[in-house]
Amino acid sequence: MSQPTLTLGELRALMDQISFNRLLGLRLTRQHRDGVTVECPIREEYTNLHGTLHGGVTAALADVAAGFAVIAHARGRPVATVELKLNYLAPIHGRRVTARAHLIKAGSTLCVCAVDVFTEHRRLAAKALVTYMLLPAPLK
Amino acid sequence: MSQPTLTLGELRALMDQISFNRLLGLRLTRQHRDGVTVECPIREEYTNLHGTLHGGVTAALADVAAGFAVIAHARGRPVATVELKLNYLAPIHGRRVTARAHLIKAGSTLCVCAVDVFTEHRRLAAKALVTYMLLPAPLK
Amino acid sequence: MSQPTLTLGELRALMDQISFNRLLGLRLTRQHRDGVTVECPIREEYTNLHGTLHGGVTAALADVAAGFAVIAHARGRPVATVELKLNYLAPIHGRRVTARAHLIKAGSTLCVCAVDVFTEHRRLAAKALVTYMLLPAPLK
Amino acid sequence: MSQPTLTLGELRALMDQISFNRLLGLRLTRQHRDGVTVECPIREEYTNLHGTLHGGVTAALADVAAGFAVIAHARGRPVATVELKLNYLAPIHGRRVTARAHLIKAGSTLCVCAVDVFTEHRRLAAKALVTYMLLPAPLK
Repeated sequence: MSQPTLTLGELRALMDQISFNRLLGLRLTRQHRDGVTVECPIREEYTNLHGTLHGGVTAALADVAAGFAVIAHARGRPVATVELKLNYLAPIHGRRVTARAHLIKAGSTLCVCAVDVFTEHRRLAAKALVTYMLLPAPLK
Repeated sequence: MSQPTLTLGELRALMDQISFNRLLGLRLTRQHRDGVTVECPIREEYTNLHGTLHGGVTAALADVAAGFAVIAHARGRPVATVELKLNYLAPIHGRRVTARAHLIKAGSTLCVCAVDVFTEHRRLAAKALVTYMLLPAPLK
Repeated sequence: MSQPTLTLGELRALMDQISFNRLLGLRLTRQHRDGVTVECPIREEYTNLHGTLHGGVTAALADVAAGFAVIAHARGRPVATVELKLNYLAPIHGRRVTARAHLIKAGSTLCVCAVDVFTEHRRLAAKALVTYMLLPAPLK
Repeated sequence: MSQPTLTLGELRALMDQISFNRLLGLRLTRQHRDGVTVECPIREEYTNLHGTLHGGVTAALADVAAGFAVIAHARGRPVATVELKLNYLAPIHGRRVTARAHLIKAGSTLCVCAVDVFTEHRRLAAKALVTYMLLPAPLK
């Protein structure tokens, strides 16, 4: 796999440009050779009827982590999610949840990430496979 | 498939008890014999870099629509998402997006929904398969 | 969606060129405006420990049905499976099983099919979402 | 994760009882604490139009590897595939292909495996997530 072409600072600046990511409070905490780690605070309003993290937040977090793992290698091309698959393995409690995205295929058109979602006590709580497409030019 | 055991009013009351659904502004607009339709407003802060709906919102909406299709038939048992798969077919613009969930398997332990997500112009924008589990008793 | 560019006869000839499809005994029984129906005999050697159809045969059948729905619209471009998701809804018994693939997105690069798998008594036994890619030129 | 309750020999005997696995020539080559490795020969008749391994064989192999990782921990309970998701990452050539299944959740009802499929040159060629259900008693 080639080196990432964006720095952690550039990725963070991009994260903050995406309004839904700001709304959720997502933070890109680490950049790895093959991906990124993204953290999401667990706020009162992110919970479901069981008082645990809403599955929609977990899905959004996995999608974003995969997206940034792809963007880091995309050499400036815009990207779009093609499909997302998530297995929920354990309920998520606590103050924060993190997603570690691994870029497992970096193609010229399609990129695939495996994402592990962890509770703050490092329990594996969800596992995702996410496909992104590199677009030739900005979506309109 | 058996008749739903909750009314539209009861489902709506439940929708409003889930804080993340309230945060997104989700509204259960219709109940069908085999499922429900859930609507999500598209607010400025739900967009991504392309100015279209963030994939995480679409995933959350599909998860919630499937969940309520299951809850309507669950005879009071609590439910939890087992896994979710979503294909993004077209970018979503406009003022609102809707998800129509069809309960395609109503088992005693597992329920499966197929979900169609439509733009406000009734274009099919995403398609999901979502598995829920009926729990014996409330999650703690 | 545009008209298919291959006839039923051409699709059947192609089906017979693929050795694994011949091994399974797959037969393209119908062409629809938006897809195809493929039938698989259930032979003694396709069963699992329960005496029902092996999940791998169901997955192969769904993949092939989706592939032919795509090929019918691909104007001669070669295709490859990108990803496949299948929910098993009921055990499959009997003498044959059929898959009806619906092309729900026919893009210039990616095509997506929803596939319904039925028992010979027309019970919905599995549901799949399958993504194919149209390749610029033959794979080597 | 608890210790497996079946030995490699017992798993192999079971593999040979499943007629479709025998038809494909699947061989359980290794047992790991958290799963198994299953090998499939690549025969002439397993190929597609590109001369590479048919996607249906890869899917069947991933399903079987996951199934045996689950069976090894199932304490004699019968199992059934709930759902399967597979991303195809690279075409598969050569004489054999292997799948390494990791049991990532061993619940009392649901088990989830992550499966890596490798070419004979150890290139990651596909990645799967597979959910199995432990049944209370034999399927009829």
